[in-house]
Amino acid sequence: MADIPDADQRPDAPRSIHYRRVVHLSHVLTPGMPEWPGDPPLAIDPVATIAADGYALRRLTVGEHSGTHANAPSSFHTGGAPIDAYPAESLVRPAAVIDITAAAARDADHRLTVDEIAAWESAHGPIVAGALVLVHSGWASRWGDPARFLNRGAAGRMHFPGVSLAAAEWLLGERGVSGIGIDTHGIDGGDAETFAVNARVLEQPRLVLENLANLDRLPPTGATVVVGVLRLHGGTGSPAAVLAFV
Amino acid sequence: MADIPDADQRPDAPRSIHYRRVVHLSHVLTPGMPEWPGDPPLAIDPVATIAADGYALRRLTVGEHSGTHANAPSSFHTGGAPIDAYPAESLVRPAAVIDITAAAARDADHRLTVDEIAAWESAHGPIVAGALVLVHSGWASRWGDPARFLNRGAAGRMHFPGVSLAAAEWLLGERGVSGIGIDTHGIDGGDAETFAVNARVLEQPRLVLENLANLDRLPPTGATVVVGVLRLHGGTGSPAAVLAFV
Repeated sequence: MADIPDADQRPDAPRSIHYRRVVHLSHVLTPGMPEWPGDPPLAIDPVATIAADGYALRRLTVGEHSGTHANAPSSFHTGGAPIDAYPAESLVRPAAVIDITAAAARDADHRLTVDEIAAWESAHGPIVAGALVLVHSGWASRWGDPARFLNRGAAGRMHFPGVSLAAAEWLLGERGVSGIGIDTHGIDGGDAETFAVNARVLEQPRLVLENLANLDRLPPTGATVVVGVLRLHGGTGSPAAVLAFV
Repeated sequence: MADIPDADQRPDAPRSIHYRRVVHLSHVLTPGMPEWPGDPPLAIDPVATIAADGYALRRLTVGEHSGTHANAPSSFHTGGAPIDAYPAESLVRPAAVIDITAAAARDADHRLTVDEIAAWESAHGPIVAGALVLVHSGWASRWGDPARFLNRGAAGRMHFPGVSLAAAEWLLGERGVSGIGIDTHGIDGGDAETFAVNARVLEQPRLVLENLANLDRLPPTGATVVVGVLRLHGGTGSPAAVLAFV
């Protein structure tokens, strides 16, 4: 597996982020939030209190892929890079935000297509190399209602939007994107039989972000995303503090 | 308690971050890393494996103030703001990095003084309002050796550098700083009898960052710090993904 590349081929070249606002792209972490089946549920327990100890502190128990999170190559590839291997440079990316809310409203199983990317590029120009593609399905509005967020149907299968393997291949091969993020619990889509899209994107390796919030507050182009990952030694991913500079 | 202010009095004013490099200011989180006495030790346990489940995932158990972390007002003040109350804007700050490595090498109990701040300003100019003051004691080089990092002496008391209450008062009152960070396990210093400095800074409230890494890679002025906190509902703080744009 290739090393994780830095964001820029010109190390130490002067760069700038221009912005007017900073936006949280991470949900608040609350017990009872939507969780992937089988994942350890978020638990928060008191450890120290102001009255007894002079400070308050709690114990957090959480899965590596809970809440708004990043997946690392080691989650899908034996010997893949862990989350603590990402250079700081690689966590700062220009965003290309693709709105699929209309299609997702019609079909919960909708997955981003190559045609939708082409339509987006007709309006906004080619996706730049190194961009982080953020897929806005509108699913974040369901975050407070786990049943609607995971949207289980017959036989317990989940139904939420994702990215088609063809679209992921096109973004990687034709545009050299640095990763894909989405506001649902998985870029593969809820009813996917495999994790082929995650596995393909993280083979490179690149970034995968899931359960993003507030994508409706981003423009199609021009935002810069800063991905704050917990640098868990050997981590398969981590809950992430994602901020957008808009 | 006052609301947490935004970083800028001119909302939506154009702003820019100019940089050449991005630097991790967070340590890698590893079981066995230095922990505050009584804090829940970091534990990481396998939950899912690629062979059995198609993906690997682990359960993380961690205290809110473990590793490189932010403290929130609610940690020291009943009714204080929790970590999820910080607006995104408030997590992006210009840094003023004060080097106390020489004094800390002579005296592990050294705490930043008002005179040291005055000397720093003589060389680098006044600390700007809203700056995050980062105190570089050299302690991060001890991170891999918990006994040396916590540096317990007679009667089990810890000995590591911090910030004097007078210096904290001066920075808040005379310069309007947005917070204080340090590369040790506490801005109060290891042998402090109370958490008066934490309590004072977070009364405002502002930011407190502890166990920072790589402060030796930052210039005295000109860096921008982006603090990625886990937005734990009601959190007294959180492990933090801190990045510096240099």
